[in-house]
Amino acid sequence: MTQSAANESSTFSSRNATILVIGGAEDKVHGREILRTFFERSGGVESRIAIIPSASREPEAIGSRYRTIFGDMGAKNIQVLDIRERYQSEDPIWQNYLDDCTGVFITGGDQLRLCSLLADTPLMEKLLLLVQRGDVTLAGTSAGAAIMGHHMIAGGGSAESPNRSLVDMTTGLGFLPQTIVDQHFHNRNRMARLISAVSCHPDRIGIGIDEDTCAMFEGHDTIQVVGKGTVTIVDPGEMSYTNAKHISSIDPISIFNLRLHVLTHGDRFNLPQRSIELPEQQMTA
Amino acid sequence: MTQSAANESSTFSSRNATILVIGGAEDKVHGREILRTFFERSGGVESRIAIIPSASREPEAIGSRYRTIFGDMGAKNIQVLDIRERYQSEDPIWQNYLDDCTGVFITGGDQLRLCSLLADTPLMEKLLLLVQRGDVTLAGTSAGAAIMGHHMIAGGGSAESPNRSLVDMTTGLGFLPQTIVDQHFHNRNRMARLISAVSCHPDRIGIGIDEDTCAMFEGHDTIQVVGKGTVTIVDPGEMSYTNAKHISSIDPISIFNLRLHVLTHGDRFNLPQRSIELPEQQMTA
Repeated sequence: MTQSAANESSTFSSRNATILVIGGAEDKVHGREILRTFFERSGGVESRIAIIPSASREPEAIGSRYRTIFGDMGAKNIQVLDIRERYQSEDPIWQNYLDDCTGVFITGGDQLRLCSLLADTPLMEKLLLLVQRGDVTLAGTSAGAAIMGHHMIAGGGSAESPNRSLVDMTTGLGFLPQTIVDQHFHNRNRMARLISAVSCHPDRIGIGIDEDTCAMFEGHDTIQVVGKGTVTIVDPGEMSYTNAKHISSIDPISIFNLRLHVLTHGDRFNLPQRSIELPEQQMTA
Repeated sequence: MTQSAANESSTFSSRNATILVIGGAEDKVHGREILRTFFERSGGVESRIAIIPSASREPEAIGSRYRTIFGDMGAKNIQVLDIRERYQSEDPIWQNYLDDCTGVFITGGDQLRLCSLLADTPLMEKLLLLVQRGDVTLAGTSAGAAIMGHHMIAGGGSAESPNRSLVDMTTGLGFLPQTIVDQHFHNRNRMARLISAVSCHPDRIGIGIDEDTCAMFEGHDTIQVVGKGTVTIVDPGEMSYTNAKHISSIDPISIFNLRLHVLTHGDRFNLPQRSIELPEQQMTA
């Protein structure tokens, strides 16, 4: 399935897939709650994990670090897919390993590097298929989170009124095509750039994820929040107007009637309905 | 009228008052669009202007700067109400001058200093009455903007998930009691602190104003945007849940179903209806 096909997909994720979209700087030392959730969703000690460190310029070090972490948790089968050139993704060794994987973890680094190495390669097409079938649990942190949408935030600034030049948009890997993901979200003051991104693509939904926080996309199209910070939903579903496409790239953007949710650990958001799923204690609060 | 009475007021401003709430760093040199708007709304060359520099620790310098600006525009009657101690606000000279004023401009500085000098003084009570009657045009920039609400943001941080300790709340001067105003808004990455403030006071409406930008509150309860940046409305009118009052001050906040608008020059927002007033070219865009 190509990216453009993924782009046309009407669902956010397949029925059974779990995709952990992590805002970066997840706890790697103490409770490791998010990484442990990935490990358990991947099958625990029976899991077969692939680590893709290609976003990083130090893939060996970062790959090794996650290998140790998941190994410490009890995973016996872990491979680092240290792809540094596009041709490597055609290597049948990786292809075969992926076929039997139960969990794939994409590390941080530079999301542009990640996409330039992996977009539209046979390996990514296979991974997309496995995720859509629900055959693997996918996780991405930081740059590995940024690539989830069809439209991807490649970079940008802060401390400005929302404007198109505040955010560099390009094409992501499209695992969650309807989303525009931003990470290190409140930690790096990225609300203005996410609003800017959403104003340019109001058919998507903006998801801002804080550090040590995970938006866990689960079968049946629900996001559940895991971790220490917040997941911010910037939903243009009811947007009544934006001037974003009619102004110069440095002009401030008007955008009316966004829906804004800030979610914390345990909160759930229903993507197709674009609504909060209120647990009992919240309904009575 | 005391602050608590202002707090109970059901309207945002009186029928005829114009209140210019300026996000700081307004253009003082070139087009001076916002300051010129204040000057014109105050009666132009016929205006009688009072400048209140009490937020500043250099009241003489800042008062003098605005006196020169409005003087250059053609104002003939300008007084700097250089109040540095609370007792000075009882001076009949200031009281009498205020009686005949057509425009009052409150400068930047420290909003806590401003409130400690002026809150609940006879001078402020008179000014509140004059503004409510629509007898004067009021403007405040930066600290002078922060004091507009009943609840005031005294300070705070950024680069964190929304949480109560991210924002210091106290009581403002209450000219626009229903609002919680934040200034230098996107310039200083203040979205998370405004969300935090709104979660603690969901009966109000959050107004974030960028530098060189003005939210002009006009009779009939409309906000019109003037200037270079954006005015961000964080409206909890449809909020369905927040945990803000049930968690520790450093825990991240959940808040669901905020309405978010980003407005630019010329955009209008109807406060009682909490809706955008779409001009014709926007409705067809």
